[in-house]
Amino acid sequence: MASLLRLPSLLSPSKPLLRRRLPAARLAASAASRGQASAAAGAAAPAAAETRGGDREGQVTPRSADFNAWYTDVIAAAELADYGPVRGTMVIRPYGYAIWEAIQDYLNVKFKETGHNNMYFPQFIPYSFIEKEASHVEGFSPELALVTIGGGKELEEKLVVRPTSETIVNHMFTKWIHSYRDLPLMINQWANVTRWEMRTKPFIRTLEFLWQEGHTAHATLEEAEKEAMQMIDVYTKFAYEHAAIPVIPGRKSRVETFAGANRTYTIEAMMGDKKALQAGTSHNLGQNFSRAFGTQFMDENGQIEHVWQTSWAISTRFVGGIIMTHGDDAGLMLPPRIAPIQVIIVPIWKKGDEKASVLEAVDSVQKILKEAGIRVKVDDSELRTPGWKFNHYEMKGVPVRIEIGPRDVTNKSVVVSRRDVPAKQGKEFGVSMEPSILVNHIKGRLDDIQGSLLQKAITFRDSNIVDVSSYGELKEAISEGKWARGPWSASDADELKVKEETSATIRCFPFEQPEGTKKCFMTGNPAEEVAIFAKSY
Amino acid sequence: MASLLRLPSLLSPSKPLLRRRLPAARLAASAASRGQASAAAGAAAPAAAETRGGDREGQVTPRSADFNAWYTDVIAAAELADYGPVRGTMVIRPYGYAIWEAIQDYLNVKFKETGHNNMYFPQFIPYSFIEKEASHVEGFSPELALVTIGGGKELEEKLVVRPTSETIVNHMFTKWIHSYRDLPLMINQWANVTRWEMRTKPFIRTLEFLWQEGHTAHATLEEAEKEAMQMIDVYTKFAYEHAAIPVIPGRKSRVETFAGANRTYTIEAMMGDKKALQAGTSHNLGQNFSRAFGTQFMDENGQIEHVWQTSWAISTRFVGGIIMTHGDDAGLMLPPRIAPIQVIIVPIWKKGDEKASVLEAVDSVQKILKEAGIRVKVDDSELRTPGWKFNHYEMKGVPVRIEIGPRDVTNKSVVVSRRDVPAKQGKEFGVSMEPSILVNHIKGRLDDIQGSLLQKAITFRDSNIVDVSSYGELKEAISEGKWARGPWSASDADELKVKEETSATIRCFPFEQPEGTKKCFMTGNPAEEVAIFAKSY
Repeated sequence: MASLLRLPSLLSPSKPLLRRRLPAARLAASAASRGQASAAAGAAAPAAAETRGGDREGQVTPRSADFNAWYTDVIAAAELADYGPVRGTMVIRPYGYAIWEAIQDYLNVKFKETGHNNMYFPQFIPYSFIEKEASHVEGFSPELALVTIGGGKELEEKLVVRPTSETIVNHMFTKWIHSYRDLPLMINQWANVTRWEMRTKPFIRTLEFLWQEGHTAHATLEEAEKEAMQMIDVYTKFAYEHAAIPVIPGRKSRVETFAGANRTYTIEAMMGDKKALQAGTSHNLGQNFSRAFGTQFMDENGQIEHVWQTSWAISTRFVGGIIMTHGDDAGLMLPPRIAPIQVIIVPIWKKGDEKASVLEAVDSVQKILKEAGIRVKVDDSELRTPGWKFNHYEMKGVPVRIEIGPRDVTNKSVVVSRRDVPAKQGKEFGVSMEPSILVNHIKGRLDDIQGSLLQKAITFRDSNIVDVSSYGELKEAISEGKWARGPWSASDADELKVKEETSATIRCFPFEQPEGTKKCFMTGNPAEEVAIFAKSY
Repeated sequence: MASLLRLPSLLSPSKPLLRRRLPAARLAASAASRGQASAAAGAAAPAAAETRGGDREGQVTPRSADFNAWYTDVIAAAELADYGPVRGTMVIRPYGYAIWEAIQDYLNVKFKETGHNNMYFPQFIPYSFIEKEASHVEGFSPELALVTIGGGKELEEKLVVRPTSETIVNHMFTKWIHSYRDLPLMINQWANVTRWEMRTKPFIRTLEFLWQEGHTAHATLEEAEKEAMQMIDVYTKFAYEHAAIPVIPGRKSRVETFAGANRTYTIEAMMGDKKALQAGTSHNLGQNFSRAFGTQFMDENGQIEHVWQTSWAISTRFVGGIIMTHGDDAGLMLPPRIAPIQVIIVPIWKKGDEKASVLEAVDSVQKILKEAGIRVKVDDSELRTPGWKFNHYEMKGVPVRIEIGPRDVTNKSVVVSRRDVPAKQGKEFGVSMEPSILVNHIKGRLDDIQGSLLQKAITFRDSNIVDVSSYGELKEAISEGKWARGPWSASDADELKVKEETSATIRCFPFEQPEGTKKCFMTGNPAEEVAIFAKSY
């Protein structure tokens, strides 16, 4: 399954990214440096004879050398995704999709716990719907894919392939909502959406992507606001506790607010190259769509009112955020709670008579861990050396590796290595195979790694946010690739000027604000809040 | 949330289906006949004052009176789905979507157990791809939705919104498969698909629908055949054991085989009106797509070969199959294993001082059942009478109802009613509230209902299949609305003649075949197999 990703000519005809490769000798040297047997029985020859790229396979540009090339390489080498035949589209491969499934599994439960039901709206939206909400059409019309032919005939009205579903949701809500007793109406859908993006990047910005979109209708502004805040909180907790991404939650500026919302809340994540990634948003839509679509209800006093609404979404972009937050020179590094494989077991033997006992121990260890609910995989292929496997699963970001060789079998113990701690320091010898000890040990290590990845990301984030009190200081921070945080009460025009001059935008006014009086770093006027500026994806 | 479904003018401007209603008095009379208190504290007045259709709400045309009207009414009244704004599209509402989620939860586990990984392919397919496989383009081109404008510009090549993914899957497989070591490649995706159908029916045939599509590639024909058979077997087991639908698995005739397949296996279900529903299919694609897309591999001897492939799918159509298999005059009847609500608890009290103790008991019973993993809901709304609730949840097909009144609280017992056994016979008084007794009792009843629904459907199916030995007998059986089973070895032309003259098609050559020599009922020639003919959805 580990094939080389080849870029289709449509996307980057003159840019063979995957040729930026380390010397072919790297893998072998690396395996040797770990003091491992370099060949299992019969392993070396078939590996070298591979038809699929031979020993260059699975190598990635070091992150420290070229972040963008590293990102593309990791996605190819770890088989997270591939390019689709249509420009800007992406095929999400099983290993990448499994990360998305982990995101879905967690959020789906949370959405239901907070009172939302899943359902499904059609993806074709009459073009006239998009035009009903003024700022919505302005925001989305440049990005639309339009169906104009159906069943061999030109359609009377063009159909929009949904870029988001507020319009069709409101069309239906108007049919379903009549009385205050129909409220709140709280739903979610898992779906694909299409936005005709010009500059695409796998997971981060693609022509079609997968997401969930929540849509709710409430009797009061206060309820809608509470809901919008609740959902950004669900996203924040997910980011911290499962993806180990220390996002900064806050409010978008007017300029950056969703097309059709009164307020947009966001979680902003710092990637490994210090650029910001908007990783999830929650909108208080006010009555904008309910007025455009006539979504009304009779309140307890018999008055007819427009409903107050929210919408909120997280997409497959989040997978890109995980890659770019935790990866290192060797490849991917996955937080245990969302890793498709938490533990990889690599058997090691030299002589044929060692094989049976090693594989028996491997099988028993696998069963013990599986029964404890740990996602474990054994790679007992004889086509690859243990050293190749070590590098391969490091590159794939598997949090924990267990090695079992003949001596381990004799000692009834295993060797445990952490993905996040390099070489010898991350390696523990003589960990007992006794089920309760082993399970506790591995669970403990997975928790350690989860916590350690978050802590590392927090430290990185905090050491790259600069508090600024002048535009000059902001420019300096941004030019160093950092985030700038400073008091802001200037105009939308000033905000756009900053963007033009520095490429940085207001990522958010963070919920967590410093105490005391503040002076806008741009105008010198009093400011109520600090804003965070950064370059972003 | 229980609002009246109103048909949008786009779909059936002159056909207000939902006005076919029973007399308004039906619900009240029905509640009274059950000997129930007709009013909870303060319930009668608000219910009558409802703004959403009042006491006509939730009524359905009896199934025995008009099957099609009943189907549409049930979908509206049980809030399974609604019509989307674009002709032929459907909004799947939470109660309907929860049934789809139950289908997904079961199949997703089975797919993974049988070695398949989930992934995701883009839905936009270059038009040229569809043209590569001759019979595929012939089968699908009349049904395509085409995107011709993207990002405000006319596209150079039209994009097909996927009607199925064999073409794009093969395009990618060709990139990923090189050696026998890359095989088998076994994947699945959960996705939406679009087919420009002219005559649509909620769940059964819609312009866009949800499904899973499995795609596999193998080194040999035998492996592909084994896989195709394995997956139709997974579907068959699901239908019998979870949906309580006694489908007949078999092979499609050449005429009815999937556009691009060598062989199509199918599960055929008999609906309540005796029409057949193709509920799932599994295709042995041979090398048709691998030849069209050049999907090749090097075998163990160094020979280059085309891969052998399968694809298989079940869609939201299956939800329609569940509705039409088990429903009765009163509405939906859901098999417990896929019912979103397995047990509905209705509290009953007359005097204010009874309320607290009844609700306390209700709460305790709910907790007991929930902890036992039973999907339970309490309806303690004071806006509706118990009688209204009885009818409402019967109409929604909830398998078991628990009533708890003041006397039940005194006796520490509950009243249990089965949805599938009408009136008094289905009612048990004095079932103990003691947790282990109650849980065992309810689980037992759920199992009974599951088994009973399947048995009833088997009896219905078998009493409506007629063994025929002449074309005259077939015509008679079909004209009575039944299925005809008889030996068949005639030509494709004869098969089309039967279709033209009787509207019946070969649903399948069932896997289970009678012993002995057979003579084709059409030609008198020797026949190897019996075929089943029926009218179908």
